Amino acid sequence: MVRRNEIRAGETAVQAPAATDAGLVFIGRIRTPWTDRLECPRQGRQDGPTCRIEVFEPWVAALDALGEYERLEVLYWLHESRRDLVRQSPRNDGVARGTFSLRTPVRPNPIGTQIVTLVRVEGANVFVRGLDCLDGTPLLDLKPDRSAFTPLAPRQPGDDQVGDTA
Amino acid sequence: MVRRNEIRAGETAVQAPAATDAGLVFIGRIRTPWTDRLECPRQGRQDGPTCRIEVFEPWVAALDALGEYERLEVLYWLHESRRDLVRQSPRNDGVARGTFSLRTPVRPNPIGTQIVTLVRVEGANVFVRGLDCLDGTPLLDLKPDRSAFTPLAPRQPGDDQVGDTA
Repeated sequence: MVRRNEIRAGETAVQAPAATDAGLVFIGRIRTPWTDRLECPRQGRQDGPTCRIEVFEPWVAALDALGEYERLEVLYWLHESRRDLVRQSPRNDGVARGTFSLRTPVRPNPIGTQIVTLVRVEGANVFVRGLDCLDGTPLLDLKPDRSAFTPLAPRQPGDDQVGDTA
Repeated sequence: MVRRNEIRAGETAVQAPAATDAGLVFIGRIRTPWTDRLECPRQGRQDGPTCRIEVFEPWVAALDALGEYERLEVLYWLHESRRDLVRQSPRNDGVARGTFSLRTPVRPNPIGTQIVTLVRVEGANVFVRGLDCLDGTPLLDLKPDRSAFTPLAPRQPGDDQVGDTA
């Protein structure tokens, strides 16, 4: 079962440094059917319910041309997650493994990333399928899925760099 | 050509709100061959140079079991990017489109995400191919690529929820 915020047997918490190296601005809010972490999907599915991503001003103009893409990458802030566990026990069975080997929301920087299917853009609202986050989750970013996007800028040297230099 | 920080013809800057809604902690540093944005690849390639991701304490213990995955998702902070453009001109030709329709580093929250191929984990260092960021880029997170990861936690209600409810 997904945790609320307890520490489980076998897990390791650390004294985390202050999270003041950079600051985020919440650029919108995500509306989903899930109001409790114990009901959320663990991973979104592309045939899941339509969710509404509401974009705040002054960022609405940045949605221009987003509708050209079938698949988007969504970044959001997992605002209810603790940030201090380095080893976690997903099955709550006393067996723990490193946080970076898991896609758990509990991480030093609780940023969720998901690939979603675009349904439509309507004013400041982006309707998508494939999300798995709580209703009210703060939005951090939207971008075309990398596999669907070809850079529009001209080529530059690093684009052709392969292998290792001596 | 990738920009340093100029505003180009046709682009729109906004008065961005203060970025104080949430705070990030830099959990490591990424070492790449690129020291200038004008040389970086626009998108990393899986046959690109090996790069070294150095993880800081107290997060090194969180690397446990990461080595089981061939492909990782890396999140990093694009520390040299401006954050106030809502319309951008990738070709610098006077034609602009919305920031969210681009994978440019210039975004309200300049978080880069990349899928990389794991070469090896060695102590606090993770060697990977596929990055496209500047040398010295701050690390935000590491997780298994979503397509390679199956949740370890037991199923829960949202996992099976498809389509839209009335």
